Amino acid sequence: MINKKKILIAGGDLRQLYCARRLSEKYQVSVRGFGRDYFPPDIQLNRPEEEFCFDYAVLPVPPLDSEGMLNAPCSERKLHISEILSLLKPEGVIFAGKADCGLRDIVCANEICDYMCREELNLLNAVPSAEGAVQIALEELPVTISGLNVLITGFGRIGAALANILKGFGADVTAAVRNAQGRARAKAAGVKSCLISDIDCRYDLVFNTVPALIFDRELLSSFSRDTLFIDLASKPGGIDFEAAAELGIRAVWALGLPGKTAPVTAGEIIADTISGMIGERSSEHGEKI
Amino acid sequence: MINKKKILIAGGDLRQLYCARRLSEKYQVSVRGFGRDYFPPDIQLNRPEEEFCFDYAVLPVPPLDSEGMLNAPCSERKLHISEILSLLKPEGVIFAGKADCGLRDIVCANEICDYMCREELNLLNAVPSAEGAVQIALEELPVTISGLNVLITGFGRIGAALANILKGFGADVTAAVRNAQGRARAKAAGVKSCLISDIDCRYDLVFNTVPALIFDRELLSSFSRDTLFIDLASKPGGIDFEAAAELGIRAVWALGLPGKTAPVTAGEIIADTISGMIGERSSEHGEKI
Amino acid sequence: MINKKKILIAGGDLRQLYCARRLSEKYQVSVRGFGRDYFPPDIQLNRPEEEFCFDYAVLPVPPLDSEGMLNAPCSERKLHISEILSLLKPEGVIFAGKADCGLRDIVCANEICDYMCREELNLLNAVPSAEGAVQIALEELPVTISGLNVLITGFGRIGAALANILKGFGADVTAAVRNAQGRARAKAAGVKSCLISDIDCRYDLVFNTVPALIFDRELLSSFSRDTLFIDLASKPGGIDFEAAAELGIRAVWALGLPGKTAPVTAGEIIADTISGMIGERSSEHGEKI
Amino acid sequence: MINKKKILIAGGDLRQLYCARRLSEKYQVSVRGFGRDYFPPDIQLNRPEEEFCFDYAVLPVPPLDSEGMLNAPCSERKLHISEILSLLKPEGVIFAGKADCGLRDIVCANEICDYMCREELNLLNAVPSAEGAVQIALEELPVTISGLNVLITGFGRIGAALANILKGFGADVTAAVRNAQGRARAKAAGVKSCLISDIDCRYDLVFNTVPALIFDRELLSSFSRDTLFIDLASKPGGIDFEAAAELGIRAVWALGLPGKTAPVTAGEIIADTISGMIGERSSEHGEKI
Repeated sequence: MINKKKILIAGGDLRQLYCARRLSEKYQVSVRGFGRDYFPPDIQLNRPEEEFCFDYAVLPVPPLDSEGMLNAPCSERKLHISEILSLLKPEGVIFAGKADCGLRDIVCANEICDYMCREELNLLNAVPSAEGAVQIALEELPVTISGLNVLITGFGRIGAALANILKGFGADVTAAVRNAQGRARAKAAGVKSCLISDIDCRYDLVFNTVPALIFDRELLSSFSRDTLFIDLASKPGGIDFEAAAELGIRAVWALGLPGKTAPVTAGEIIADTISGMIGERSSEHGEKI
Repeated sequence: MINKKKILIAGGDLRQLYCARRLSEKYQVSVRGFGRDYFPPDIQLNRPEEEFCFDYAVLPVPPLDSEGMLNAPCSERKLHISEILSLLKPEGVIFAGKADCGLRDIVCANEICDYMCREELNLLNAVPSAEGAVQIALEELPVTISGLNVLITGFGRIGAALANILKGFGADVTAAVRNAQGRARAKAAGVKSCLISDIDCRYDLVFNTVPALIFDRELLSSFSRDTLFIDLASKPGGIDFEAAAELGIRAVWALGLPGKTAPVTAGEIIADTISGMIGERSSEHGEKI
Repeated sequence: MINKKKILIAGGDLRQLYCARRLSEKYQVSVRGFGRDYFPPDIQLNRPEEEFCFDYAVLPVPPLDSEGMLNAPCSERKLHISEILSLLKPEGVIFAGKADCGLRDIVCANEICDYMCREELNLLNAVPSAEGAVQIALEELPVTISGLNVLITGFGRIGAALANILKGFGADVTAAVRNAQGRARAKAAGVKSCLISDIDCRYDLVFNTVPALIFDRELLSSFSRDTLFIDLASKPGGIDFEAAAELGIRAVWALGLPGKTAPVTAGEIIADTISGMIGERSSEHGEKI
Repeated sequence: MINKKKILIAGGDLRQLYCARRLSEKYQVSVRGFGRDYFPPDIQLNRPEEEFCFDYAVLPVPPLDSEGMLNAPCSERKLHISEILSLLKPEGVIFAGKADCGLRDIVCANEICDYMCREELNLLNAVPSAEGAVQIALEELPVTISGLNVLITGFGRIGAALANILKGFGADVTAAVRNAQGRARAKAAGVKSCLISDIDCRYDLVFNTVPALIFDRELLSSFSRDTLFIDLASKPGGIDFEAAAELGIRAVWALGLPGKTAPVTAGEIIADTISGMIGERSSEHGEKI
């Protein structure tokens, strides 16, 4: 097709390459910020040649590193955002995850759209997160999941996805939630529930999805040392890891699971979300996709 | 306990009696608007004697009948709302479902709280609705649900609850939804999806949960006459029933399922919702429960 | 095809007509023993004209009624087996269910194959049996199945199928079994278990699949009167129904479920089983199908 | 208890120690064949001191190594079976797995019971096998299991357990089986099926449980190189691994999974099986347990 939109994927890890591969099914895609060695053999993508030619740039999560440079751990050299901007059309649009972390201070002229705010991305990411958490449980536990008493704190997207998987294993799943709405949500999904304030110590396996301290030293000390805790919440997590270590309780802080355990799926989720965002923009502006 | 709050349950059907039974575990409950013959043998509840003594009144869904009188189909005589108000304390609060249907015009002095607007009630009602819909399918179909291709249009509370049950039967379930967010919601629940605009005719059983016409004459006519349609959406439903009848396609409009197929559960859901609302009010106002 | 085998379906109920319809996809099928009014509009089948022409006859379950005549409740007149035999080829084979009930005394010359002894038929019948049992529970219970404590006595084909469906509803399912092998079978299917000798009274819903008295007066009297018992075992059932009635406990004896609740599926299961048996015979004897 | 039976656990890996721990809840247990370093900190067990005192000896699977010595990989030195026999009472009984592999030639006087032949052990082992196989899939795949087309060849104990787990992940599961009985078994479990002779190449993930070559070079070459094969069958496996390697197809031969991925559960399964066998012997012989 002669008028395919041009997209530049800049920086990030393996996920962004799989995102690029998926987007290349519909758009003309180039990649910047990956050393030759990082390319999987099954991905063939161009490098950008011309300036000011790209309609869109896709930056990773977060877009900048701690020095304010492009977050590009697979690049052979540091890349400044201005290098990326010089490849974009003047009216080009930037897609980035967690764009508020400094990017908006650097980029003035171009519109920035945050794909991490999209509900469908967060819903879809719940699946690789839940699968990754179950993988950790399978790796860490010397017993089967079948027959275990499992607690999931929080029953949002990830909690609900976890419960579905764990029930298939034959685990006895309880969700700990904040209020009556939470209990109703669990009930509607066929999952038993209790209030977070009423958590007792009879569980063999605990997944936390709530970004607030729930398992403090006192609560942890009521549990058996055979109980495994897996924390999926980003900072602050829900477990006092220091206390857990002192009590001899195994606690794993599992961050960034989608990218680690299912990079292809994680990249494709980003691609599909951006693809949907471009589609919405086009139909609003009457543009061609 | 000497200072239990007093609640008057007035009007409605069997559900309201089970609601009363449940509330009587925590409160002092009286009932008005039920002939003697309507009382199940396992429910013992008082009739109100004194005036101006009740803290709360619970009215049914909807609270008024077509003539503006209390909706009390089990009563031996017509009851006017003023009879109920005369039993309430001056500062007494009214709980009603779909309170906007005329009630607010009649009641001036008392606060009205609509329990049908509560998220937990609608979540919990999804379960008896889904079970009732599956009961209809079992009754109507001369084949097993196992192995059927089933379409659910809409993937909200009821659609998600239906999918869980139907997967347990071994059906092959697809959800038809409006957009990418809907598809992500289905995916996160482990359910296949398509867009409503792309529905094809290969389904043996269709549940509609969307209150907008989806299955018009043209779409219906593409389906086999062995397909069973069950519409769970309140008016307007999602199926052109007239066209279905002319085409020889079985279509069931299943309204008010929670009350019909699981009146005890439906009544207890109302009771628990009201109980939660009273609890919230008390903690806000520093009142005793 | 010029040499299609000829099959006579004789007697039985609606199931046998659906069996006939299914077999007519592969064979030349005629039907005897159904009054005109019994034919569903969507079934078109011939009546047999010639004598001694059929390769196979399919009789119902059981093949004979209490007077020793063909079990043909939909026939306008009594039919003697000799009428059927006169239509069969001398080397014609009879398929019947529960053939030992007198049929072998009457039929001397023709081989009789009992399709009710086939493992695949009994496995497949477990599905409509389980769905029919769940339908009864939905119809009888004024509460949802979600959240109920359910006991299944016996964990054979029907028990396992029931457990799968009930878990989809969000019920808490326990299987009561005879020994360690039974418990292992339940465990492997992700279902909790106890020994039949250790059944306690905490269940809201009980399905029995064991053909031996388990719920005697003493055990029944320990249960709440709100508990619903559904017995799926053929005579003798597992429940003392007389004691249940006296105790005010609801107990439903659900016999012949596949034929009642899913006649099309039940008929097709018989057809597919016979079709498989004919296939095996042909490959053994080097015959054409 | 003064008359507890004495059991000697001799040889094997970590599983046998967990087996010993579980048996020590009911019996007086000693252990031989484990170097000090192999004992987990949470297991305290005696070493045998006296001769001819043990009622039972428990040997591992298989009981002998390739040189005919006790299979004791955690021992600091080679152990001959005669050392074990000298600790047993003259009428002492030996429990061993795969006892036919040479053990019966060496042991003359003592009865040998093979616990690997017990149906409940094989049923229970299906659960850790299936969980271990899913763990491998999670580790090897760069995509989520949710949404994958998964084929399971064979629908016995392990195949059925796998299907339950994979359905919880939201995979689309098909079982490939040998005949009509197999298809009926899958259907009764709510799983789609095909005949092994009709396997096509549309699967993303394949688990083989059949100990016979199914995936030969020709069939393998029809699959995508992204398909992951996991073989759970003991020798001979079901996959031509040499051809798979040449075709660039990932194939994992996962042997001995229960012991590797869930040693505690695997050991407890052996313990519970032996405990049941001792119970049966006692009730047959009128002995005390």
